[in-house]
Amino acid sequence: MRNQENNTPARDVIAGRNAVMEALRSGRPIDSIYILKGGAKGALGKIIACAKDENIPIKDATPQKLEALCGEINHQGVAAVAACREFSTMDDVMRKAGTEPPFVVICDNIEDPHNLGAIIRTAEAAGAHGVIVPKRRGVGLTATVAKTSAGAVEHMPVVRVSNLVSTIDELKEKGFWIFCADMDGEPWCQADMKGPIGVVVGSEGFGVSHLTKQHCDFVVSLPMKGKVNSLNASVAAGIVIYEAVRQRNDIRAR
Amino acid sequence: MRNQENNTPARDVIAGRNAVMEALRSGRPIDSIYILKGGAKGALGKIIACAKDENIPIKDATPQKLEALCGEINHQGVAAVAACREFSTMDDVMRKAGTEPPFVVICDNIEDPHNLGAIIRTAEAAGAHGVIVPKRRGVGLTATVAKTSAGAVEHMPVVRVSNLVSTIDELKEKGFWIFCADMDGEPWCQADMKGPIGVVVGSEGFGVSHLTKQHCDFVVSLPMKGKVNSLNASVAAGIVIYEAVRQRNDIRAR
Repeated sequence: MRNQENNTPARDVIAGRNAVMEALRSGRPIDSIYILKGGAKGALGKIIACAKDENIPIKDATPQKLEALCGEINHQGVAAVAACREFSTMDDVMRKAGTEPPFVVICDNIEDPHNLGAIIRTAEAAGAHGVIVPKRRGVGLTATVAKTSAGAVEHMPVVRVSNLVSTIDELKEKGFWIFCADMDGEPWCQADMKGPIGVVVGSEGFGVSHLTKQHCDFVVSLPMKGKVNSLNASVAAGIVIYEAVRQRNDIRAR
Repeated sequence: MRNQENNTPARDVIAGRNAVMEALRSGRPIDSIYILKGGAKGALGKIIACAKDENIPIKDATPQKLEALCGEINHQGVAAVAACREFSTMDDVMRKAGTEPPFVVICDNIEDPHNLGAIIRTAEAAGAHGVIVPKRRGVGLTATVAKTSAGAVEHMPVVRVSNLVSTIDELKEKGFWIFCADMDGEPWCQADMKGPIGVVVGSEGFGVSHLTKQHCDFVVSLPMKGKVNSLNASVAAGIVIYEAVRQRNDIRAR
């Protein structure tokens, strides 16, 4: 994608009706399809139907958004962003966990590909077993995410789900404890993170959505001692993830 | 700066001999001056002398680098990057610390403005008293750093020093304990971070330089459990900084 994502070359963008249809037919992994808001959807009926069959998110786009994606190529009101790899399934995550208590990182609405890449990288280094992202909101597995993950995206199963709240409820039924980081919780280093756990990461500065937060078992907080008082999403995620690493590897804190 | 820094508009770049000389004369804060490598330095003598007087770093630049900075403007072999604010002094840092034991974050060679911005943001939220950056290597206080810091750059003294190793030695003489994060140290949560401390952050994935590391009192490590096994510099910094926050605020770990 161009502009939006650190001026990365547009080679992961497929613009125009025929090109997008061809990509869908060929089975190339597609992250999402952008369609001009208020445009003639009729002419794009085949693309929309095919995308729905393949479970690919369709997003409304402004003319500016499409132009930023496609540059000077005539996009005819439609563009697809290729995915750098296929999404995994929860079965892949459980397989990766093996005999360890599973540890997943759940991204609630991460829009910035650099943040998602850094979170996948941290999850991989921390020995987590999977990263879960929502289908509609937030960024998918684009080229910038892959680059920022420093290759971790190749080793870490990333699962895309239709409904994050349902997924959290399903995980809880399977015995997971779900944590999110927000302002009014217990200190991050006092929650018990040893069993099967999911750590929910909010968008910027702990922006876990209200509904998601209601479905979490525990809220943990980081002390804020300054004037700006928010952390970059991937930094906040790293701090909570490494507290889990400390506990799960029985590293005694001073 | 353009291209290098997420395609931010070029309004913080001053290109061409007269424009750079004028900026120097007006006393506008300048982060650094780029001069064409192998170019006719004679014609730029006044600029170089003036920059030296003002303690502004002069950096050799390839033609590509100057073009990336200046776009189509005729740079005549010289460009200056404006600073978003003035650097602070160690006195400012000590004043901010007041009666608390001082806590500084020392950046060893952070090249990526997004990382420096995120580190300044984390330091501010953590209640640290200053960030130290080297004069020659690494990025300064550019517009992208300010933006990524989410405004924290306005509240956190950032000190630029000529020689990071001498600065570390001076801090040690003043009673600071200096920590760096690297591969072969004790677990990050077992070092005593309660007194006056400096935390050294290496460039990417703990790249603290060999010489800097030799001058540190303690090396702390984060467990790496994956295949990629490195963390984004600002994420690694955040994990170590928040361990210091835990100890300095007497927060008991589980």
